[in-house]
Amino acid sequence: MKYGARNQLIGRVKGIKQGTLMSQVTLEIPANSQMSSVMTLDSLEELGIKEGDKVQIIVKAVNVLLAKD
Amino acid sequence: MKYGARNQLIGRVKGIKQGTLMSQVTLEIPANSQMSSVMTLDSLEELGIKEGDKVQIIVKAVNVLLAKD
Amino acid sequence: MKYGARNQLIGRVKGIKQGTLMSQVTLEIPANSQMSSVMTLDSLEELGIKEGDKVQIIVKAVNVLLAKD
Amino acid sequence: MKYGARNQLIGRVKGIKQGTLMSQVTLEIPANSQMSSVMTLDSLEELGIKEGDKVQIIVKAVNVLLAKD
Amino acid sequence: MKYGARNQLIGRVKGIKQGTLMSQVTLEIPANSQMSSVMTLDSLEELGIKEGDKVQIIVKAVNVLLAKD
Amino acid sequence: MKYGARNQLIGRVKGIKQGTLMSQVTLEIPANSQMSSVMTLDSLEELGIKEGDKVQIIVKAVNVLLAKD
Repeated sequence: MKYGARNQLIGRVKGIKQGTLMSQVTLEIPANSQMSSVMTLDSLEELGIKEGDKVQIIVKAVNVLLAKD
Repeated sequence: MKYGARNQLIGRVKGIKQGTLMSQVTLEIPANSQMSSVMTLDSLEELGIKEGDKVQIIVKAVNVLLAKD
Repeated sequence: MKYGARNQLIGRVKGIKQGTLMSQVTLEIPANSQMSSVMTLDSLEELGIKEGDKVQIIVKAVNVLLAKD
Repeated sequence: MKYGARNQLIGRVKGIKQGTLMSQVTLEIPANSQMSSVMTLDSLEELGIKEGDKVQIIVKAVNVLLAKD
Repeated sequence: MKYGARNQLIGRVKGIKQGTLMSQVTLEIPANSQMSSVMTLDSLEELGIKEGDKVQIIVKAVNVLLAKD
Repeated sequence: MKYGARNQLIGRVKGIKQGTLMSQVTLEIPANSQMSSVMTLDSLEELGIKEGDKVQIIVKAVNVLLAKD
């Protein structure tokens, strides 16, 4: 599968928190870094992931903000 | 500085492409991974970054999509 | 492939416009409706699409705005 | 009303789920397709929609991701 | 018209820059503040705005990042 | 700190609502206007804000929608 997005990383599911409507997935990426994704519970269920699963992390470049001091 | 975003990584500017109105910044993050940010040329100028600079990469978790096969 | 996004439609590439850095892809979806995606030229090239190709259209529900009069 | 967004579809409200802070609206669009929008409960209330209502669905093209296999 | 978004401001078009594919609209909001919107040239044309026009500025709350030192 | 974003306003925290997983922060900006940000409870905690605090509001221009009648 190919994606029209500049940011494509591989991560491992480290934790899943379920809210009333939304869910938050914490991911381990290489070099001990961490990322997170928020999606609906419906999407989480459809995605069918559990702790330890390998997932693709996709972010469009327009949604990446840079800061510098 | 603290940010209300789940994804905060440190990257190094690897390349900058300037279009007519927009610009695209390629970033090296640990473990030989790569990320990209697209912003206006005005924002690029205000940010004042050049190749090799260390920058903060910020992405809100709602803008992170997960995929799994 | 499964996606952590509520909006997943199938479309056909109807037109591709290339700018200096960005590109704009127009898509036909069923019932004579039309959608569009903007991505970098780099992402367009990596995606490798051409007119007539069938593609998956993915939008996270948080990026969908509703209006009503 | 005119919008500065490439994606403008007409949908009908099929279901509304209310969480603690957020809400999720499911929409029917032509050809038996379905879309969803996530917004705050405050926005849902202000929008004042109920099942069966016709609404305008607006998505900026930069938030549309394409995938192809 | 009602919108499912928490951020709705009124602005006046102060400047329009046209790129090859994208455009950038600068807006004056009360108290001498300034905002900007980036959209495709196609959307700009459809919107039909010119300097001095009053426009509605809409931003979903999930796309608003807070920072604090 | 410098940001690669066209929209940077200063606001004062007026109210914080906490959901199960997400939170919603209402902000006062000059001229009696109001903005809102939605983030995870984790991000809210990390940000460490309370009513009355001055915060920086950052929005990328691609996430700003214009409407005109």
